[in-house]
Amino acid sequence: QWMMLDWKPKRPDMLADPFGLGRIVQDGLVFRQNFSIRSYEIGADRTASVETMMNHLQETALNHVKHAGLLADGFGSTPEMCKRNLIWVVTKMQVVVDRYPTWGDVVQVDTWVAASGKNGMRRDWLVRDSNTGEILTRASSLWVMMNKATRRLSKIPDEVRDEIAGYFVDSPPIVDDDSRKLPKLDDTTADYVHSGLTPRWSDLDVNQHVNNVKYVGWILESAPLPILETHELASMTLEYRRECMRDSVLQSLTSVMDEGDADVAKSSIVQCQHLLRLEGGGEIVKGRTKWRPKYPDRIGSLGQFPAESA
Amino acid sequence: QWMMLDWKPKRPDMLADPFGLGRIVQDGLVFRQNFSIRSYEIGADRTASVETMMNHLQETALNHVKHAGLLADGFGSTPEMCKRNLIWVVTKMQVVVDRYPTWGDVVQVDTWVAASGKNGMRRDWLVRDSNTGEILTRASSLWVMMNKATRRLSKIPDEVRDEIAGYFVDSPPIVDDDSRKLPKLDDTTADYVHSGLTPRWSDLDVNQHVNNVKYVGWILESAPLPILETHELASMTLEYRRECMRDSVLQSLTSVMDEGDADVAKSSIVQCQHLLRLEGGGEIVKGRTKWRPKYPDRIGSLGQFPAESA
Repeated sequence: QWMMLDWKPKRPDMLADPFGLGRIVQDGLVFRQNFSIRSYEIGADRTASVETMMNHLQETALNHVKHAGLLADGFGSTPEMCKRNLIWVVTKMQVVVDRYPTWGDVVQVDTWVAASGKNGMRRDWLVRDSNTGEILTRASSLWVMMNKATRRLSKIPDEVRDEIAGYFVDSPPIVDDDSRKLPKLDDTTADYVHSGLTPRWSDLDVNQHVNNVKYVGWILESAPLPILETHELASMTLEYRRECMRDSVLQSLTSVMDEGDADVAKSSIVQCQHLLRLEGGGEIVKGRTKWRPKYPDRIGSLGQFPAESA
Repeated sequence: QWMMLDWKPKRPDMLADPFGLGRIVQDGLVFRQNFSIRSYEIGADRTASVETMMNHLQETALNHVKHAGLLADGFGSTPEMCKRNLIWVVTKMQVVVDRYPTWGDVVQVDTWVAASGKNGMRRDWLVRDSNTGEILTRASSLWVMMNKATRRLSKIPDEVRDEIAGYFVDSPPIVDDDSRKLPKLDDTTADYVHSGLTPRWSDLDVNQHVNNVKYVGWILESAPLPILETHELASMTLEYRRECMRDSVLQSLTSVMDEGDADVAKSSIVQCQHLLRLEGGGEIVKGRTKWRPKYPDRIGSLGQFPAESA
């Protein structure tokens, strides 16, 4: 993993980016941006939520395109894509979180792109603690092009390939592809169903669509509270099937998978499967999550935190 | 307004704060922090939401206490407050937004505190465009102390006053106090009622309470869509009455006030009243909002934005 090799303590580095807007490093192939974790980005565990982490990934992806001079519409399309009415849509996202940062931590997010088959693009991210260089999160995503008018997938036109191929990195995915098929989940197989989810006005992006990070919140919405209280999300695979509109009404389904293996049960790793679907029936997102026990020595003392207000 | 006088272009200034964690300025009385607006902090209008703005206010308030060396519990209480089991609770918040920033803008947030009566504290904020110095937002809030165990309000103990009084600024509120009584709002007088609101796991802070910024989202939840689509929030007064717990079920009520005055009607300013209450009946937050038409020349063209995905 060659991009692991270049980490250095970052103070002098950051002075080159005083506004925290990021910059291109490594011969123009990697975009790097620092984020300080803010008080409102942490949750009941005092750590950043996975949605916060994913927001930082989204921000670096857009800033990467912007810094490369290829941002034509403000939301990731290149000039040649805009001419053809093409947009990027994410089809798959895998995230592995080793440790969640907390308030005041500064994280350094690196991102780069690679080819994926003939007509796809892969975008990877590596998130480090900017003080220690410790790897916090790795993520890998797959994208294809869609015609905005017809909503049909498109090949990558040669003119678009000419714009972007120079940025492609020749490296394997930073997260191994989890190609296990997601089993079918429905009312009979789900352990938990949360119905009647609707986008809030504030969930909509500039195109009146729901941003794909919001889906994660809805998926976790049907995860059982005992798991949320005692475990933290260790990894997640999401497959995006279709888009959600602002008047969509959604159901979030979760099934907790049988451990089987005694060792797994002992270490209290929990695995879940998820489906976010329209109440009408269409699948929006399918997913799989893996959870590990959080700070095992502190469970049960949560109520003693002397915190409040603000 | 003396704190208006010291604005200067900020590039050299920001180099003194490369991590964007803020610092004390103006003889130690004002805390200043810059925020670059991120893609995920903007909404359907391409501008930062009022919740984003309020998150930035919260963050600077906490960092102010931290930089003053008075942060004992991570959430705003001083060492002497912690000894006595005292916490700050907000009772009133007034926000005036002249212009909302957009993605990539850098805002400069100044905050300071002042006495409020014998046993309260006022905290004010002034938000500027860091490039131009243009004032974007002003906000003023009132805080009192509460005993965490008994949930009763407390006087400010002398030892706590000794800790904080040296930071009090002698200046009038940056937003004139709106002391108009909020009329009673109930099922018969409300025009819009949104029931069954429950905190998501991700809405909880470290004390398993709902952060006061989240209330704003719920209040706006019952504002009618035609207003949200055509108007932007110009100002807001919130009175916080009691806290919301993680198993609370809430109702958000809104009434659109009669304009009466012909001039006001002509300029299409809309005023609303709001109540967030427990379904059981207890009042959580009462509020008043004022809305102005947004980009009048662009209404109707929203669907043409060439944006998507990300």
